[in-house]
Amino acid sequence: MTPKEIVDKMYNNDPFSQWLGIRRIEDGKGISILELEVRSEMCNGFGIAHGGIAYSLADSALAFAANSHGQLALSINSTISYLKPAQLGDVLKTAVEEIFRGSKNASYIVRVTNQKGELIAVVNGAVHLSQKLWFDK
Amino acid sequence: MTPKEIVDKMYNNDPFSQWLGIRRIEDGKGISILELEVRSEMCNGFGIAHGGIAYSLADSALAFAANSHGQLALSINSTISYLKPAQLGDVLKTAVEEIFRGSKNASYIVRVTNQKGELIAVVNGAVHLSQKLWFDK
Amino acid sequence: MTPKEIVDKMYNNDPFSQWLGIRRIEDGKGISILELEVRSEMCNGFGIAHGGIAYSLADSALAFAANSHGQLALSINSTISYLKPAQLGDVLKTAVEEIFRGSKNASYIVRVTNQKGELIAVVNGAVHLSQKLWFDK
Amino acid sequence: MTPKEIVDKMYNNDPFSQWLGIRRIEDGKGISILELEVRSEMCNGFGIAHGGIAYSLADSALAFAANSHGQLALSINSTISYLKPAQLGDVLKTAVEEIFRGSKNASYIVRVTNQKGELIAVVNGAVHLSQKLWFDK
Repeated sequence: MTPKEIVDKMYNNDPFSQWLGIRRIEDGKGISILELEVRSEMCNGFGIAHGGIAYSLADSALAFAANSHGQLALSINSTISYLKPAQLGDVLKTAVEEIFRGSKNASYIVRVTNQKGELIAVVNGAVHLSQKLWFDK
Repeated sequence: MTPKEIVDKMYNNDPFSQWLGIRRIEDGKGISILELEVRSEMCNGFGIAHGGIAYSLADSALAFAANSHGQLALSINSTISYLKPAQLGDVLKTAVEEIFRGSKNASYIVRVTNQKGELIAVVNGAVHLSQKLWFDK
Repeated sequence: MTPKEIVDKMYNNDPFSQWLGIRRIEDGKGISILELEVRSEMCNGFGIAHGGIAYSLADSALAFAANSHGQLALSINSTISYLKPAQLGDVLKTAVEEIFRGSKNASYIVRVTNQKGELIAVVNGAVHLSQKLWFDK
Repeated sequence: MTPKEIVDKMYNNDPFSQWLGIRRIEDGKGISILELEVRSEMCNGFGIAHGGIAYSLADSALAFAANSHGQLALSINSTISYLKPAQLGDVLKTAVEEIFRGSKNASYIVRVTNQKGELIAVVNGAVHLSQKLWFDK
């Protein structure tokens, strides 16, 4: 399976990423550019997105990038740093950097920016690479 | 304002926590016991909740506990460790521990368990305490 | 091998823990109480310990606790939160909490306090449990 | 004060960085390239460096880079991911990336590589920027 086919399979079976309104801009090995528009049902009374929104977007990008090589990947842990609040109507975008990829573990950084290119959050995640593969499932 | 009044105000203005179906079991200073049932729209094709669900639940609990003292609190960063997948139908529950509370910073641990008492995830978060207060807003 | 025998073997082969002047107060399964006195060669010009000192003390405690069950444990990642600076002459002490222990992964929290019982730092660490055992080495 | 003068002042008052044998290859605004050779007193019985060594090296680089702009910076928290053990005799080197720099907070990534260019560890750290300045002290 190609990265696109793997991420198709993941995304099509992921109603939460769909509820978030995630749009896939680019798939690739170790890459995942996603976009999401901050809707009112993602915000609190101050018009600022719940902390779980930027996290969930970054977590989807991390999962897509980590699985794109064909080996099943599971998150061990992730750290999110909040740098700027995401406002109602903002369009958030991810950029994934594959820091390290060994045989059993891999490490990623996901940057979440808004439509002005300002950094909203950075997620640093460690994943376990299982011996199971994505093809023929 | 009492912790309950502050969390009422936060929760009532937080449509994402409401979409998650979060039920408040207990509010208090530095405490927040929340429950959430894992619905199909939170799961992927394997019947396992998206990583953002446990995170978002824990982040709500952390925000409620951190703001309950009356001082406005903002997340700086949080680390989530995934220990066991959350399954469709699981009822997830939070327990918050206030590790440290200074004048400008505070630190929390949120444990997320399922209905069997098994640990699903642990979130360790640092918050900044602003000089703004919750009363009279 | 008992927890004490495993930690004896680890500590006796660990010149850095010895340079730090680490004293072992209690060994046990998933437990490690260590003490260290902050010396001038651990401090900067402001009489405050380098951030690596509290981290290294906590990392030794985490390693001792994680290996004490008899299975070889390796750190995947750790997060340290700094809550209060450690001063010259302070006696730092660790308390380890075993949050989770599965067959392949385990998770620990290490609190570092000073002689007044004030919290200096908290370390949250994930370890990989290998299939290798400590006995007969 | 220039970045070099600030880091001179920090390094000259930091006996722990000196004990580590840290060599400064490059100072600059938001930059700090440091080197350290893994000596036997930093290793355990398996000839592998204590986890606190890579952390301490990265923490020094982070502190130098974060303070280099002239504003006093204090670590809030840091996450280290261990990717490959550092062996006796390895020469470890840091590269710092300034992810974000606001008025009160900044965020850094420090990569630690060995002499073959292999990634040993990645540290992701958040710092608080105080209103105090480095000049005229």
